[in-house]
Amino acid sequence: MLHTNLDVNNQGHLTFAGFDTVSLCEKYGTPLMLLDEERVRANLRIYLTEMKKAFGEGSFPCFASKSLSFTDIYRIVKEEGAGIDIVSPGELYTAAHAGFPLEKSFFHGNNKTDEDIAYALSEGIGYFVVDNEEELYEIERQSAEKNHVQNILIRLSPGVDPHTHEKITTGQVDSKFGIAIETGQAIEFVGKALSCKHIKLMGYHCHVGSQSFDSKCFMDAAAIMLSFIREVLDKYGAETEILNLGGGFGVRYVDSDPHIDIPFNIRLLAENIKACCADLKILMPKIIMEPGRSIVADAGLTLYTCGSVKTITGYKSYVSIDGGMADNPRYALYSSAYTVLNASKADKPADLVATIAGRCCESGDLIQEGVSIARPERGDKIAVLVTGAYNYSMASNYNRLPRPPIVSLYKGTDRVVVKRESFADLVKNDL
Amino acid sequence: MLHTNLDVNNQGHLTFAGFDTVSLCEKYGTPLMLLDEERVRANLRIYLTEMKKAFGEGSFPCFASKSLSFTDIYRIVKEEGAGIDIVSPGELYTAAHAGFPLEKSFFHGNNKTDEDIAYALSEGIGYFVVDNEEELYEIERQSAEKNHVQNILIRLSPGVDPHTHEKITTGQVDSKFGIAIETGQAIEFVGKALSCKHIKLMGYHCHVGSQSFDSKCFMDAAAIMLSFIREVLDKYGAETEILNLGGGFGVRYVDSDPHIDIPFNIRLLAENIKACCADLKILMPKIIMEPGRSIVADAGLTLYTCGSVKTITGYKSYVSIDGGMADNPRYALYSSAYTVLNASKADKPADLVATIAGRCCESGDLIQEGVSIARPERGDKIAVLVTGAYNYSMASNYNRLPRPPIVSLYKGTDRVVVKRESFADLVKNDL
Repeated sequence: MLHTNLDVNNQGHLTFAGFDTVSLCEKYGTPLMLLDEERVRANLRIYLTEMKKAFGEGSFPCFASKSLSFTDIYRIVKEEGAGIDIVSPGELYTAAHAGFPLEKSFFHGNNKTDEDIAYALSEGIGYFVVDNEEELYEIERQSAEKNHVQNILIRLSPGVDPHTHEKITTGQVDSKFGIAIETGQAIEFVGKALSCKHIKLMGYHCHVGSQSFDSKCFMDAAAIMLSFIREVLDKYGAETEILNLGGGFGVRYVDSDPHIDIPFNIRLLAENIKACCADLKILMPKIIMEPGRSIVADAGLTLYTCGSVKTITGYKSYVSIDGGMADNPRYALYSSAYTVLNASKADKPADLVATIAGRCCESGDLIQEGVSIARPERGDKIAVLVTGAYNYSMASNYNRLPRPPIVSLYKGTDRVVVKRESFADLVKNDL
Repeated sequence: MLHTNLDVNNQGHLTFAGFDTVSLCEKYGTPLMLLDEERVRANLRIYLTEMKKAFGEGSFPCFASKSLSFTDIYRIVKEEGAGIDIVSPGELYTAAHAGFPLEKSFFHGNNKTDEDIAYALSEGIGYFVVDNEEELYEIERQSAEKNHVQNILIRLSPGVDPHTHEKITTGQVDSKFGIAIETGQAIEFVGKALSCKHIKLMGYHCHVGSQSFDSKCFMDAAAIMLSFIREVLDKYGAETEILNLGGGFGVRYVDSDPHIDIPFNIRLLAENIKACCADLKILMPKIIMEPGRSIVADAGLTLYTCGSVKTITGYKSYVSIDGGMADNPRYALYSSAYTVLNASKADKPADLVATIAGRCCESGDLIQEGVSIARPERGDKIAVLVTGAYNYSMASNYNRLPRPPIVSLYKGTDRVVVKRESFADLVKNDL
């Protein structure tokens, strides 16, 4: 099957992390999000082990919270020893709530408000990843007030096109994020940061894309970033301790997606970076990577109940499910590919080609088109695979649908880690 | 300005419904959603008055909850005397919570679960708008158990292309919604509904699109639906009491959008329907329309605080705000047009062309591109106009951002009707 945590049992039911998914639906209802905790840990360990080996002590992965943020995920990340990337005070709050050590956290984003900066300073944030001049000076101002020196990185645009979907690529020069190297604005910005007395410039960050199946775009970006580090050394005499290359290794959503060997790609990247540093005659900085999708995507699976199978004579068939763009807006947003299975009939041939339609009152609420699936009937459980990333985190209450729970599966135990929203939750803030 | 509830005061601030928007930001913080209650009422009254005049007693508008659902909106709709269109048990719960009389409600959607049907029956739902065979028989089964006869409409696909955006058009034959007339499946389905002893088939529903600036697509759809009603009379001898034409009149988001005269279009539609009924020799059914966007869109406005203005030399400028696709995903989803103003400098010339970028850690998180705006600085309040529909209702906690509050403006009084989400709310269901 697509990933090794998927199988079919002798009842013909899809299993995930060893659990019968149909039984879990009966126990918890649908829509239901599952998280294979062992898979999250295993994915984290690949980065932890390989980055330490390849880049040396002090280099480590930071889990990109935006892919999946809830309290318990930070406990897992903490236990495994990774850092975190956060992009909002809400993610910071959730991590703090979980007792995550915030000195290993990087606060990203193109718009940190005065309140965000105050809150992050009060919580002892490890690093701000400074995106623009306004926030540089606000961090300086607030740090000065506290007589504190704050570690920062600067977000740069290396101008690398990662050849992935336009909406989720972020390394180009024309971007809302960061400061462009190519235009000369970045080297000028470094001068401003170095002149701030309550800021310690520790290094640079870039993010060249998502869903990359090799390390080419990372190597291209690293080469540009390391040249820039040399330029900073020449111009300002300032050494650089940290190079944060962001996230982006790809995940298999469908059979046609390639396999990626992350350890191999990390080693390749390390060799490339070492050679580059030698050429440039600079010390190799500590390397940070920020995987999100590749940590949690294949650890997640969403289950729905089929409500209707409709064949429009001469046109096509629709399978309607009891969730949709409210819990998974990725097809509506990006036309993202997903694998969909009839979990109740996982041993049956895929004899129906259908569009999998969400229940929202909107034609664009589809999960996938042209799926081959074992013909479902009302009541069958429908599994959408590889939903661990950017599903729960992007979920809304569109159509006033309560968000599904997350049930963690670990060492043979199933456990609710996020409760299903209730109708009462929907009106909790209504006056 | 774009709508009559917008103006500029002598401090150079944008006003909305007579209120200084900058002062409201100071009072409530940002992001902030405003709702002009008088405008909601006025928009509802246009439909209430004109539909009664044009179609006669028993014809009325139903507010499409999916455009904006929170408790207090149902009080307003109830006071004005309109019905409601709901698409989920969560919307039903919210309406019931507000004390809305549910006999004037229509329960839509392509996937009503067994639990939804049970809940709606227990609450005395007025009408199910039946989408498929599976739910027809489930409603029959549950109604029989209760010894109840349930009113329903059947959702039909008239096959009208409303020439609006693909993702939000729903009248075509190839749709996840309803039963197609053209394929012969609809007339067959009516026979099945008529044979259900605990179901009373009251009529038909169709929905031909959104953002239509004339009544052409409604007239085309009505002609097909009325011919179908004649066909049902001929085949089954069954009269039709209700024709529900759904929603869809357009709203001006930007200056280039046309003005629409809704009373004129309702009269035109009524003349057309009357002539059509006379030709077909059928009694004119009661007409229901389901406006959502045209009730609340121009009654809403969202305010943000500018965090940064970034000009990439040789490329373009970005204005970053403290909200984005988490509270308004419509540009990310549909490339929707919006008018954006610097509310703090509404009297200043629009001297900057910029992309308005949300704060989410995603390149596609933009609110609008190529906007002419009075150059903002950090702290200026940025207004996005006409956000009353499909903004709050589609809002998520993506990037773990709390959802903004809604402040109602009515008769000179500002009042919180939905509280701002707190960080504690974000983790309330985390175990």
